[in-house]
Amino acid sequence: MAEATIIDGRALAATVKDALTERVHQLQAKGINVRLDAVLVGGDQGAHLYAKNQAKACSAVGIEYMLHEMSENASQAEITNTILELNENNNVTAIMVHMPLPSPVDASAIQMLIAVAKDVEGVNPANIGNIVFGRRSLVPCTALAVLEMIESTGVEIRGSRAVCVGASTIVGKPVAVLLMQAEATVISTNIHTKNCDDLMRSADILVSAAGVPKLITADVVKDGAVVIDVGINRIVGDDGKKRTVGDVDFSAVKNTAGYISPVPGGVGPMTVAMLLRNTVQAAETTN
Amino acid sequence: MAEATIIDGRALAATVKDALTERVHQLQAKGINVRLDAVLVGGDQGAHLYAKNQAKACSAVGIEYMLHEMSENASQAEITNTILELNENNNVTAIMVHMPLPSPVDASAIQMLIAVAKDVEGVNPANIGNIVFGRRSLVPCTALAVLEMIESTGVEIRGSRAVCVGASTIVGKPVAVLLMQAEATVISTNIHTKNCDDLMRSADILVSAAGVPKLITADVVKDGAVVIDVGINRIVGDDGKKRTVGDVDFSAVKNTAGYISPVPGGVGPMTVAMLLRNTVQAAETTN
Repeated sequence: MAEATIIDGRALAATVKDALTERVHQLQAKGINVRLDAVLVGGDQGAHLYAKNQAKACSAVGIEYMLHEMSENASQAEITNTILELNENNNVTAIMVHMPLPSPVDASAIQMLIAVAKDVEGVNPANIGNIVFGRRSLVPCTALAVLEMIESTGVEIRGSRAVCVGASTIVGKPVAVLLMQAEATVISTNIHTKNCDDLMRSADILVSAAGVPKLITADVVKDGAVVIDVGINRIVGDDGKKRTVGDVDFSAVKNTAGYISPVPGGVGPMTVAMLLRNTVQAAETTN
Repeated sequence: MAEATIIDGRALAATVKDALTERVHQLQAKGINVRLDAVLVGGDQGAHLYAKNQAKACSAVGIEYMLHEMSENASQAEITNTILELNENNNVTAIMVHMPLPSPVDASAIQMLIAVAKDVEGVNPANIGNIVFGRRSLVPCTALAVLEMIESTGVEIRGSRAVCVGASTIVGKPVAVLLMQAEATVISTNIHTKNCDDLMRSADILVSAAGVPKLITADVVKDGAVVIDVGINRIVGDDGKKRTVGDVDFSAVKNTAGYISPVPGGVGPMTVAMLLRNTVQAAETTN
């Protein structure tokens, strides 16, 4: 059996970004500036570094990044007001709120406030709900990244059997919803699933979002399957050094799978690219 | 093998309604009137009869039914204004809009406007989206009815294998989402599914929402399975008379299944009961 084709998240993201650069230019030619308004409440050094990297990713495709920094003591009402102002501002077409918000702020309540058409992270439940109801919408970025990576292989999703390992609210359930929308036969498993190995072995498309290193071994992957690894696990390697691995035993599974996404360099970079794409899409839809 | 236990939708609905009558009394004792505000735009004789029956169902548990009738020529803006007024009115805790709306009104846009906390039919996508995100919410009534009927059997959903036949936006997908939330292993099938019979045979819980008479035959139902029939099909019987049947070959499957819901008298009456329960829940939550 030939080795699996690697689904290179960095290369795919670069292709997406090239296309976005062109779309941003087209908008600019019409006098439209593409901007992402991000709200950061408090936040440690890591959060600020993250925001800085996000600004850089935006800048690379011509998106302006406007960071709205609020005090770590900002109240629910103050954050609410900031969101409502951004919702009403016609110059703002894309809004995101950095998580986590300091306690005791109710983060869900804040996310629900973001105007559906400006919610480029897809955290307002109306956006994934629209997908359940079969409507066009801004899709949560990680789930969208998974779908794009599957589509990049050219394997037809409609009629294929897709197994989602893990049913988390952030990844597993939204991915299952998107795959249903794409007319796959979708199997959603969780920690209580019986005969999970048999189900995984039957998968044409296997998405793992369980957060368990080496959960997906070669013997549970069908020959030629598409394997997407959404796990991000920090482990200590044999050399005593910390590193990031996914849920898939990559070196073994690459001999069985037809296509496989690595960690790092897989879903991660594509998720960032999907945020940028949603941002451009929101600007195009509004203008 | 003993015959399956019938999941009697009318009897279950009656039990639900008894409990609701008590909850309505408790609210009234606190001076709170429970009301369902329904918007009917145009509508033929059938639509008015439907509304009248709904009023009767509400009245039976002590819920006031206020019908807002609008001209069949009402514009998008006029219907929007009616919804926004109801959203803002503190005396209104439950809102529903009768479908279909006359063309060219955009029904989805109207449904998205209904305040999430007052949306007792669960048609605002934010409500099913909240379920995807693992939050408490007002659940679409038919999907909720299916879950309640499964729960009525006492069969544990967590860890069981649930197969949803049909992935419609109205029933199949929302039911799959609810079953994921209940920690079942969920298999969503559609017309493109390969080896669908094998999947159905593996189901501890089989929900059919395909709209195909006699799709579910005895040979695809596991001994002892819970079978919920959401199909509503009008057929001409051997006697030349029209009648309503589900997707399940009831007379054969009842010898295989452990529990089975009939059509009529199954999901239908429970769906009405769930609308009433959502209405009471909305009044309790708001007050």
